[in-house]
Amino acid sequence: VVKLNHTDRERFARIALSFVAEPGDPVLGALLRACGPAEAFAAVCDGRPPESVGTSGGDGIPRLGRAIERWAARLDAVPTESRLAAWERAGIRLLCPGDPEWPTQLDVLSDVRPLVLWLRGSADLRFACLRSVSIVGARAATGYGQHVATEMAAALAERGFCVISGGAFGVDAAAHRGALGADGVTVAVLAGGLSYGYPKGHHELFAAIAGQGVLVSEWPPDRAPTRPGFLVRNRVIAALSCGTVVVEAAVRSGALSTARHARDLCRPLMAVPGPVTSDMSEGCHEIIREWGAVCVTRAQDVIEHVSPVGEGLGTRRRGPAYPRDSLDVESTAVLEAVPARAGAGPAVIAAAAGVDLDTAIRCLGALAAAGFVERCPRGWRIRKNV
Amino acid sequence: VVKLNHTDRERFARIALSFVAEPGDPVLGALLRACGPAEAFAAVCDGRPPESVGTSGGDGIPRLGRAIERWAARLDAVPTESRLAAWERAGIRLLCPGDPEWPTQLDVLSDVRPLVLWLRGSADLRFACLRSVSIVGARAATGYGQHVATEMAAALAERGFCVISGGAFGVDAAAHRGALGADGVTVAVLAGGLSYGYPKGHHELFAAIAGQGVLVSEWPPDRAPTRPGFLVRNRVIAALSCGTVVVEAAVRSGALSTARHARDLCRPLMAVPGPVTSDMSEGCHEIIREWGAVCVTRAQDVIEHVSPVGEGLGTRRRGPAYPRDSLDVESTAVLEAVPARAGAGPAVIAAAAGVDLDTAIRCLGALAAAGFVERCPRGWRIRKNV
Repeated sequence: VVKLNHTDRERFARIALSFVAEPGDPVLGALLRACGPAEAFAAVCDGRPPESVGTSGGDGIPRLGRAIERWAARLDAVPTESRLAAWERAGIRLLCPGDPEWPTQLDVLSDVRPLVLWLRGSADLRFACLRSVSIVGARAATGYGQHVATEMAAALAERGFCVISGGAFGVDAAAHRGALGADGVTVAVLAGGLSYGYPKGHHELFAAIAGQGVLVSEWPPDRAPTRPGFLVRNRVIAALSCGTVVVEAAVRSGALSTARHARDLCRPLMAVPGPVTSDMSEGCHEIIREWGAVCVTRAQDVIEHVSPVGEGLGTRRRGPAYPRDSLDVESTAVLEAVPARAGAGPAVIAAAAGVDLDTAIRCLGALAAAGFVERCPRGWRIRKNV
Repeated sequence: VVKLNHTDRERFARIALSFVAEPGDPVLGALLRACGPAEAFAAVCDGRPPESVGTSGGDGIPRLGRAIERWAARLDAVPTESRLAAWERAGIRLLCPGDPEWPTQLDVLSDVRPLVLWLRGSADLRFACLRSVSIVGARAATGYGQHVATEMAAALAERGFCVISGGAFGVDAAAHRGALGADGVTVAVLAGGLSYGYPKGHHELFAAIAGQGVLVSEWPPDRAPTRPGFLVRNRVIAALSCGTVVVEAAVRSGALSTARHARDLCRPLMAVPGPVTSDMSEGCHEIIREWGAVCVTRAQDVIEHVSPVGEGLGTRRRGPAYPRDSLDVESTAVLEAVPARAGAGPAVIAAAAGVDLDTAIRCLGALAAAGFVERCPRGWRIRKNV
């Protein structure tokens, strides 16, 4: 049975909220930052904002009142314990922030961090993503794009990298197949529920991924995907991985939204060039030229530009995980500046550490991914198990 | 008859030296900087370094003694007036620095600036190169590379850009044909003499280029090309043009030597991507990734990254050529710091202008290309006709 411990009101509230709100809703993210899941869910049940938060003015959250009405109207979507248990019996497990398998690198998503994650498959998500590359691209990939995605994923898998992608036809599927064929671990982040399993044509591929890797979704298992959901999902692909490679993308391809997230999160962004006579490579060439994406042609190029989570923090090391003395000067300064319990926002931490805001945010993301710090209502705090 | 005015000893000496020394010889460049062509040629005739220069020690030119012996041994290559006149009757004209058609942007080549240039064709070299792009690439180009070179050259020609390339099969020929087909002006810089006309298979292409553009060589007209000559020639292609595009190049392609010159001269360097499965695009991808070459896919991308000579100096302007008041602040400061007659070296000019050395060199190159300044024995001086 899903660990729906009744004393764990926070966890229950978080799960319930994940059924009434859409993933990536920044209003809910702001509300959670202001008051935590239990109070937020209580507010939804009451149909009005918590007294401590307010709906407008200097400290208020814009559009909160209407959002709460919207969520309250969907309260009947909150599942019973038996429904949750049925999903668990079907092999679908539920992750919340703070769980050992939770990938803390998602914390850089801040207000749009997933509320929960649904998982199906044998791999440990957190461990798999520590050394991972997203390979994304067009559904309508050419033979060239599929060939390159397959070969690159296989070569990365052979070098111990987990391949992360969506679940679509084209480049996504080719990347998963390449990694699976090389006995690699692969993570498919879906934009609909895991029982729904969109697209249906990938039933067997998803089964193979579950056997050797893990399927991931922010949406309740039986939820059908929606068009905006694919774009919302892309931030998770970018944030989970140590770097993103775009294999083929037309200039308006959804794969470029994943690329944009990778860029905005300061994760390595790469693109595979192709014939200039092919529309399907135009997006790749554009992000190489305009966004500074690195032009990569083979797995080795990718590996040179990707730092597995934690490794970028200091000198290469072997031995016990994440010792503080392996950190570089900036990361150490930022870590020293993070309050132990109450937490603080990035600007406060940056000032205390004597670094600029961008550096602080980058270090906090890396420190979170390496397990030193974690998000909390007021920003970032030291993670207890360090 | 070639203007071999006997009172013009400097010009005669320069022409004579161009028959005894190989193009791009930095020892001769240093000698010319130290004492000018007339004294340098007199020294070759004497078989020993000029007294004013010396062969070793602090102020001496390394290896000068042996170089003079080598040049002296070839004095019988110096042509008679009737031989020069025969070439002129054959439509081959001779350019020396200071001639109106001399492309002053070559002055950035400093000690390896061509001694003279031989030209055949209807176009004015200096004028053509003011708005020009080099398109270079592999002899063993694929159909893809030839297609891209042809299309890009045609599109650049249609937009009023002169196309500069070598005379080889593959990308060079495709670029010339594309530009010629669009009624454009094209410049072929050959690595052997213009009467020799290597490769022979391009006899008709060279005739077409001469009809619509101009053929250029540093080598005496009847000289056969040598293998090292092609690499020496590449600096001229890079220096003549406002930017260089590599269309297809294997990782050890000679086209990358042109690219390296463009980079070292701080001229815009661009490359056309191709399938990562093609060896012939590997060099392009490498310089995009490693050298920061701009990834260009069509003529418009190229035009956005190329500043026609002079235009980069200030705000866009119409009207009389090169008025001083169109210059930007740095170029104006550098120009003010250039001595009128005696000349000065870049470091002195940089100090006087209050800019760093790189900026001074960049501004001097642009100012030279725009006709404001010229090289002189002591460095740079104001050009008289400004």
